[in-house]
Amino acid sequence: MRRGVIFGHRDFERILEAMERGQPYAVMTGLMPSGPMHLGHKMVIDELIWFQKRGAEIFLCVADIEAQIMRGLPPQETDRIAVEEYLSNYIALGLDLEKCHLYFQSRSKVVKDFALKLGTHVNFSELRAIYGFSGESKASHIFYPLIDVSDILHVQLQEFGGPRPTVVPVGVDQDPHLRLARDLATRVGLVPPSSLYHRLMKGLLGEKMSSSRPETAILFRDSEDEVRRKLWNAFTGGQPTEKEQRELGGDPSKCVVFEILAYHLLEDDNELASVAEACKEGRILCGECKRSTTQKLLDFLAPVKRGREKALSKARELVTAAF
Amino acid sequence: MRRGVIFGHRDFERILEAMERGQPYAVMTGLMPSGPMHLGHKMVIDELIWFQKRGAEIFLCVADIEAQIMRGLPPQETDRIAVEEYLSNYIALGLDLEKCHLYFQSRSKVVKDFALKLGTHVNFSELRAIYGFSGESKASHIFYPLIDVSDILHVQLQEFGGPRPTVVPVGVDQDPHLRLARDLATRVGLVPPSSLYHRLMKGLLGEKMSSSRPETAILFRDSEDEVRRKLWNAFTGGQPTEKEQRELGGDPSKCVVFEILAYHLLEDDNELASVAEACKEGRILCGECKRSTTQKLLDFLAPVKRGREKALSKARELVTAAF
Repeated sequence: MRRGVIFGHRDFERILEAMERGQPYAVMTGLMPSGPMHLGHKMVIDELIWFQKRGAEIFLCVADIEAQIMRGLPPQETDRIAVEEYLSNYIALGLDLEKCHLYFQSRSKVVKDFALKLGTHVNFSELRAIYGFSGESKASHIFYPLIDVSDILHVQLQEFGGPRPTVVPVGVDQDPHLRLARDLATRVGLVPPSSLYHRLMKGLLGEKMSSSRPETAILFRDSEDEVRRKLWNAFTGGQPTEKEQRELGGDPSKCVVFEILAYHLLEDDNELASVAEACKEGRILCGECKRSTTQKLLDFLAPVKRGREKALSKARELVTAAF
Repeated sequence: MRRGVIFGHRDFERILEAMERGQPYAVMTGLMPSGPMHLGHKMVIDELIWFQKRGAEIFLCVADIEAQIMRGLPPQETDRIAVEEYLSNYIALGLDLEKCHLYFQSRSKVVKDFALKLGTHVNFSELRAIYGFSGESKASHIFYPLIDVSDILHVQLQEFGGPRPTVVPVGVDQDPHLRLARDLATRVGLVPPSSLYHRLMKGLLGEKMSSSRPETAILFRDSEDEVRRKLWNAFTGGQPTEKEQRELGGDPSKCVVFEILAYHLLEDDNELASVAEACKEGRILCGECKRSTTQKLLDFLAPVKRGREKALSKARELVTAAF
């Protein structure tokens, strides 16, 4: 929040109030097990860890129905990806998964049944206005948002603790779901969920980061060489020539390397500011900066990678318990 | 079939062929637990008993999601209605429920998951063309037909015996579902289900029979007095006066009392034909006919009622086992 990575919210006051007064509230988020975990996925986990340190009750949904319906992946594959790419990395990053309410959409009778109930409170016109559905839209794609909203709202059902403030940390592209969830919450007598919006990371080559295009993102499973190569090829805010860079300086605000430093690697604001200054004043070249950032990134990733190997069996255990 | 009560089909040859060759086939049908069971519901059960005598494998679905989503009934109520109104009467009518694959939609993970998968193979335009959906249609009502189709097709999944001919005995009003099920079957590599269509019984007062308007139907839970009163008030094919009836004769084809005899009470075709003749020739008056039909109906209902009381605990047991 301090750096504007989390830059927006809806109704977060409700959560702050609950935190200050020691009243119950829930944190709800999910992962879609359709591809490898990358740095962009880490931001929500950082938020979860922050909330967990403050004693928050956390619900973590594996959106395997989404991966199956929208991406056509078979259940065995979504199960594997959930454990090997996400949950084991979450543990390695420091999230205490045992303290989270972990569940898989496809195994949750409550979520599916509540989705069908919620779906009697919203008509096709409203869904079309939010999602742009047309006659070509598949029936399950039209219905899927209700499962998503059910994920968010079911934590307020009596058996999960009853109506209470809930915050959903998400990328800003997820806002339509949140608006639908807020509308439906009021229609069924629940508290409209709050949300926190973080910026979406730029792709390494300057476009959108996507786990289906591995060259656009640093993956947690990348080898050292892959990390080196990807950062070396990354789009920066630098000038075309060394001469111009020395004279005109670079632009950290356009630079994906600087973004990685700001979002993930430099905790100290002064240190971050001095990197930005050095760049803007042309005192540092992109190659130099990439080399030092690569080293920081590898230093960060190495223990996570080792931790993930150790966390794998724990993650499998928790998943089996969740089924 | 002999009397034209079952008057149409799609692809029933496929089932006849399987029966003749001793090859596997399935019978699939369902009940919606939203109101009391009436005589109109008995026709499918007669068909199931016929198939069961021939060794057919029968799948029986309690469409409780439909009752909950379309009629807004709570789950406890749909559970109660399923047992007390339907399953216990099925046993009393002679269906061996223990030999059926009995399940509740809401408890079937397979049916819900397969519905979501099937829903990726049909778009909104197709559903609109079949069901007349508009922008006002609720999301769950748009999605519900996929659950219905999943009920019909899931019996062909590997875990339930694999692809094979399946016949669905239904009222003719259910044909749209069957057409959708047949289209979707071919899209997912299953055998298009066959169907048998029976006529819908007329309502006692001449309009549509409906379990939500108890005066239109003979209910299995009606007292003797209610049965007497309902039949006495029933719409017939008789003339306004005794004189006209004696001279012109009545019209059994318009008569709900004659329909009850034909569909449920007179096994012997000659006996049925002589009632029709007597009516047409004015040799019998409506009052007379109603009295004798009432007696036949009470004689039929009494043992079913006693059997139902005995069958209640068995039905509860089977339902508990099915959960």
